[in-house]
Amino acid sequence: MTVLPAQPAGQRPLIGVTLGDPLGIGPEVIVKALADPALRSRARFVIFGLHDVLEVAADHAEISPFWWREPYEHGPRVTSGVLVVDFDELPPLRLNGQRGADAAAGHASFRFVEEGIHHLRCGTLDALVTGPICKQSWQLAGHRFVGHTDLLAQRFEARRVNMLFVAGALRVALASDHVPLFELRNRFTIGLVHQPIDLLDRALRQWFGLERPHIGVLGLNPHAGEDGLLGDEEQRIVEPAIAMARSAGIRVSGPLPPDTAFVPDVWQTFDGLVALYHDQGLIPVKMHGFDRAVQVTLGLDALRTSPVHGTAFDIAGHNRASPGSMKAAIGMAIELAAIRQQQPAAPGAMRA
Amino acid sequence: MTVLPAQPAGQRPLIGVTLGDPLGIGPEVIVKALADPALRSRARFVIFGLHDVLEVAADHAEISPFWWREPYEHGPRVTSGVLVVDFDELPPLRLNGQRGADAAAGHASFRFVEEGIHHLRCGTLDALVTGPICKQSWQLAGHRFVGHTDLLAQRFEARRVNMLFVAGALRVALASDHVPLFELRNRFTIGLVHQPIDLLDRALRQWFGLERPHIGVLGLNPHAGEDGLLGDEEQRIVEPAIAMARSAGIRVSGPLPPDTAFVPDVWQTFDGLVALYHDQGLIPVKMHGFDRAVQVTLGLDALRTSPVHGTAFDIAGHNRASPGSMKAAIGMAIELAAIRQQQPAAPGAMRA
Repeated sequence: MTVLPAQPAGQRPLIGVTLGDPLGIGPEVIVKALADPALRSRARFVIFGLHDVLEVAADHAEISPFWWREPYEHGPRVTSGVLVVDFDELPPLRLNGQRGADAAAGHASFRFVEEGIHHLRCGTLDALVTGPICKQSWQLAGHRFVGHTDLLAQRFEARRVNMLFVAGALRVALASDHVPLFELRNRFTIGLVHQPIDLLDRALRQWFGLERPHIGVLGLNPHAGEDGLLGDEEQRIVEPAIAMARSAGIRVSGPLPPDTAFVPDVWQTFDGLVALYHDQGLIPVKMHGFDRAVQVTLGLDALRTSPVHGTAFDIAGHNRASPGSMKAAIGMAIELAAIRQQQPAAPGAMRA
Repeated sequence: MTVLPAQPAGQRPLIGVTLGDPLGIGPEVIVKALADPALRSRARFVIFGLHDVLEVAADHAEISPFWWREPYEHGPRVTSGVLVVDFDELPPLRLNGQRGADAAAGHASFRFVEEGIHHLRCGTLDALVTGPICKQSWQLAGHRFVGHTDLLAQRFEARRVNMLFVAGALRVALASDHVPLFELRNRFTIGLVHQPIDLLDRALRQWFGLERPHIGVLGLNPHAGEDGLLGDEEQRIVEPAIAMARSAGIRVSGPLPPDTAFVPDVWQTFDGLVALYHDQGLIPVKMHGFDRAVQVTLGLDALRTSPVHGTAFDIAGHNRASPGSMKAAIGMAIELAAIRQQQPAAPGAMRA
């Protein structure tokens, strides 16, 4: 395990970046994002990954390498620039030909994330940005985590986590994520709706630096149930969850009719929204700004962001991927880390 | 019943407009929309409604009346401009004070629509644009129709109707609409998904004048089920519906992952999309262009459009409503009527 010594105070933040699946577009978007000197100048970086794979990506994109490499065993001090911690003991990967789920790639991407999380937990990293992984590859490699968020929750022993998506000024937390739509009925409880309201409120105050954020909660049904005419979940579940949050001092409104909540005049009156299911939140976020959207994990004692796209095996290796979302994820990690450095530790806060 | 004589060929189209609920924003947005001389010059208009109510709305908006009035009994020829067919035999309405569901208003708005539909069926109108009604007011007045679409389907004896929403170049048909989300499970059949594909294809060809439209069908689950990992409805229902449409010669793709389908680079490759439930389609449509979005009824032998907003009782009477969606609905009615006039009648077509 690499040893990254604790950083002296007052330094620019140290951001960890995991390569993601080496066969996906992760290496390409990381190289393209960090090729921007303006972004590089705002922080120091450690990439957990494979030097060779990054080199190929840089070569395709005609980018001169801007990093230096250390083998995995060494633990250098990152004083500036970009360090690649190279897991060169891993078996080589086939980067030519058809790309898709692959056990060796899954094993590799899992190792990168484990190492990144280790340093995030130790506090040597100020934030972690994760490149896209392939869930099926993790399964092929014998790792039974549903994805990054699941793994992070376990390693941080966090009982409550939710995904937050940010695209420009639009911030949407999800009450549920990778659940088949009709199965959600069996999991749709007051707690499920209350948790993201609570976690989003904490994050907006402690991470985004907002003093008294205003949160909007969406309804589940068309027109938010229209007073029970179109479903009773608003009355049975969503309204009690909102009342609970309100009685704990959270400034929260809803349930909002979902179809008008994302009209700009409406969402702009809120600091953040809570969507009840995956596509209710992600359709508007990706429509509003796919190429600048970022995911932030709520509920951890540490900062973790990621781009909102997947491995995109279909275009990987063709130098066609846009680094927009990865740039935004790195930029947000830097921004949140900076706000956090300025804040005093609060009791009960979502921070170490 | 008014008699509107058949119009000579070659005239500008005759567009019927129903006032909607007299207590809602319908009168205001109709007056504001048709106050635009450029819009007025493109067609001839008959408003089915109440002269007094229109006058109040015009007065509030400081618009000089641009219409002439005929009592309901008379049946003048509409050679140009805007005729208001005045249902002055209806009991007067309270236009001051709190506005909301009201039996007299429900009775009135129902009468307007019935009259509009009558003339649409007779072929004297080239298209009908409906102002927003209040479903609860219809119920209070003893009319047991869920809404316009339901009433239109019955009067036209149309076994299959679906709602289409258009905002600029984005066109989205709904496979289901005012159904509680979790109840949809019990109605989610191959036929439910196939019907809007078929009706949208016909409309795009016959009404929008596209020769070989390309339709995209959304998935139901996150990531369109991810090969069954996140739900099997794509495999059991959506894919067979698509296959059925394809074997009938329709150019159709899907199921598309819902969260990326509305990224502009994706939806712009389709002439129209089919969304499976209310908010899956209406969140992106209203986000993309609430103030220029239009509803078009699919499955009728006639053209009917409407704005996408409701009665908005909370702002009615305050001269605060935007006529954008009503203007778009009238504009689209004119446009579709013009395309239709140019087309030869096709066997099996969605036209009279």
